[in-house]
Amino acid sequence: MLSLQSKTSERWLQQVDENLDEILIDHAHCEKKAAGTAMNLISAYVDRPDLTHQMVIIVNEELEHFEMVLELLQERGIRFRRLKACGYGRQLNDLIDKQEPRRAVDRLLIAGLIEARSCERFNLLRQHVQDPQLSDFYRSLFESEARHHFTYVRLARTFASDEMVKQRLDELARAEAELIADGDPLPRMHS
Amino acid sequence: MLSLQSKTSERWLQQVDENLDEILIDHAHCEKKAAGTAMNLISAYVDRPDLTHQMVIIVNEELEHFEMVLELLQERGIRFRRLKACGYGRQLNDLIDKQEPRRAVDRLLIAGLIEARSCERFNLLRQHVQDPQLSDFYRSLFESEARHHFTYVRLARTFASDEMVKQRLDELARAEAELIADGDPLPRMHS
Repeated sequence: MLSLQSKTSERWLQQVDENLDEILIDHAHCEKKAAGTAMNLISAYVDRPDLTHQMVIIVNEELEHFEMVLELLQERGIRFRRLKACGYGRQLNDLIDKQEPRRAVDRLLIAGLIEARSCERFNLLRQHVQDPQLSDFYRSLFESEARHHFTYVRLARTFASDEMVKQRLDELARAEAELIADGDPLPRMHS
Repeated sequence: MLSLQSKTSERWLQQVDENLDEILIDHAHCEKKAAGTAMNLISAYVDRPDLTHQMVIIVNEELEHFEMVLELLQERGIRFRRLKACGYGRQLNDLIDKQEPRRAVDRLLIAGLIEARSCERFNLLRQHVQDPQLSDFYRSLFESEARHHFTYVRLARTFASDEMVKQRLDELARAEAELIADGDPLPRMHS
């Protein structure tokens, strides 16, 4: 699904069941981080009006989701707080090439893969969680995360040939699937 | 005006007249940086729902202005590009206390003072520039920058007493006025 090379396992759903509050808090952080990623891409590629415009849209949407998760937390009496991040994002970012334009391609594709994984997990969560409010919420996020995935992949193609992007997406998706298979003891959206 | 302790001098208007294109490019960068500042404040003070909500509003508004300036640049055939920053922002940020909660107060008040100076200069520009489209544009930004100033000062008061905030705002505004009096040879929104 959406370029991903693996499906989320039962192990993660068990982490969710045992730590739903922490998963929700981490979800809020993920939305904020996704907005930050889009903002950083604007700064890095100021001379790309198409990229800039799409990133502005993504920042707005991610911050809207961020506030939606904060509201859910508040309704449930869960205090939003700092959390130790799991290794997923950092380890993916370590794969980014230092040299342009490969660097741009990697940054965009990794952002796209993270959106894809979120999308896959929201789809799973909406079926898995018992709480109808939460289930509806995950359903509502599903579509925009998928759209963001396609935007990132499309923008990567403005920096390199379709063939190169396809090959790199394949490599990075394989690395992403390995990280997901390894898992993380911390219960997180991407553990 | 808006806690500022000085008025912009003729020197700056001369820089504007001689380098309007560069001032416009820098203006776009300023809007993006203002969005970044608000985003960083969300990350730094995650446990403050009021601050978070106001910062989300500010990020969205600043990015909207950013795109408006980009559109102006495009219409005028000016390429948006990186610019060497003038010393203003960095020198103000050097004044930020390392210790909380004074650090929060300083970050908010400095963000508020930068909004105030932008506001003062937009007001000046709308009277000064001959181009009616630009003049209208600066008028349209004036009100939101003033509102952001008040939001930042109000939020600072949630971290310290009114008296302490008033005194610190006075100190920082004095430092800001000195930086503005010194000026900067680079033609910028805050040179």
